[in-house]
Amino acid sequence: MKKKIKKINSAILIIGNEILSGRTQDKNVAFISSWLNSKCGISVDEVRIIPDQEKIIVKNILSLSKKFNYVFTTGGIGPTHDDITAKSIAKAFNVKYEFHKEAYVILEKYYGKKKFNDGRKKMAKMPQGAKLIYNPSSAAPGFITNNVLSLPGVPSILNSMIENCKRYLIKGLKIHSETINLYTVESSISKQLGIIQKKYQKFVDIGSYPFFRLGKIGVAIVCRSTSIKKLKNVKSDLLKLIKKKKIKILKL
Amino acid sequence: MKKKIKKINSAILIIGNEILSGRTQDKNVAFISSWLNSKCGISVDEVRIIPDQEKIIVKNILSLSKKFNYVFTTGGIGPTHDDITAKSIAKAFNVKYEFHKEAYVILEKYYGKKKFNDGRKKMAKMPQGAKLIYNPSSAAPGFITNNVLSLPGVPSILNSMIENCKRYLIKGLKIHSETINLYTVESSISKQLGIIQKKYQKFVDIGSYPFFRLGKIGVAIVCRSTSIKKLKNVKSDLLKLIKKKKIKILKL
Repeated sequence: MKKKIKKINSAILIIGNEILSGRTQDKNVAFISSWLNSKCGISVDEVRIIPDQEKIIVKNILSLSKKFNYVFTTGGIGPTHDDITAKSIAKAFNVKYEFHKEAYVILEKYYGKKKFNDGRKKMAKMPQGAKLIYNPSSAAPGFITNNVLSLPGVPSILNSMIENCKRYLIKGLKIHSETINLYTVESSISKQLGIIQKKYQKFVDIGSYPFFRLGKIGVAIVCRSTSIKKLKNVKSDLLKLIKKKKIKILKL
Repeated sequence: MKKKIKKINSAILIIGNEILSGRTQDKNVAFISSWLNSKCGISVDEVRIIPDQEKIIVKNILSLSKKFNYVFTTGGIGPTHDDITAKSIAKAFNVKYEFHKEAYVILEKYYGKKKFNDGRKKMAKMPQGAKLIYNPSSAAPGFITNNVLSLPGVPSILNSMIENCKRYLIKGLKIHSETINLYTVESSISKQLGIIQKKYQKFVDIGSYPFFRLGKIGVAIVCRSTSIKKLKNVKSDLLKLIKKKKIKILKL
């Protein structure tokens, strides 16, 4: 990874009718986002899920790639007619959609010359100038075009490729997080929590998330910041509030 | 539900830093979308996940509510400082953010006058003119403002409320679906599948999704259409292809 600069953000674009229809439960957003946060200091600031339609893909690639440092796409890079991500990205950036020589060699070697049919060849077609994201599970590479990284939709394959994205990414400041789980209800601390959030507005994000565990209601307070010092200060304020309110902390 | 008209679409807007950061796995998209498809004949054509930030919420509410028949928001309607959905929707539609009389009565009754603190009162504040979506699990209602339906983020609560959205929705034509699970790989049928898709382009969406089951690789062919007749025709074409290629069908 390259040199650290301050805040690096990204968007995830999930391409696939099967996610939109509710048939398939997306698992890639949580995985990519956790990885970007913890390993690269890159935040995910927007996610979109869109259908397999060229016009819509083109429009979203253009708008997201302008707005964010990186865009990660998932889905639509397989061998069938509904896999149109590569072609659409080529169209968005106004470059040719053509065979990538190295990808072609990788796939031909993997399948063998005889079994390297048209569908499989299609997986070697990419936007001109794309660089490869290697795939250790099923050969067919992902690729990066400008600031857009394209990965497959199948979670197990995507997960195996994610480390190979690192070489293309500029690292941002690590986002640290602190979670305190409380046996209380949100409304009993909401006022004071709002005051603490206001005090640290620019430096720390404080989130409050109800949960149910072993039949009891609780609230997870999640604080996120690039500054460990500010995070410590928030935690100390929170612990004072918890003590004052005599709330029990749940250790996980 | 009201009278049937042809195609009704919608978008889902997931509001919440916890989903964007990868801390929490979203489960609401698949649930809402499956329900809309099967019970209301309404398709979900776009999903966005955005942070708890007023400006961003306002912008997305405005653009999605213009573009789609309905928008479903999830998250941000609880009692804490990061729950700003209602206020942001009021801002987007340029109406007052004020106590909803019936919601106030419901919540006061549920918590009891003594325990009805400021955080809990906040859950009765809504955009002026909002109509309630009743909540049978934890009292705090969701609401509809123009064509935007706002639901909570906690899946179990959201699930218990979904039927109460029906009265506000116009039903579209039911989207039927047929799935054939095959023991094959995508690339062995991709060419012919493309031809079949082209033949029925305007009427049926055909998707192809690889799966792994009991150590074997397979492909699910999913066909979706509002026309049962066209769906039958596609299925018959597919079965001919499967027979010709001697592919085994997996019955689930």
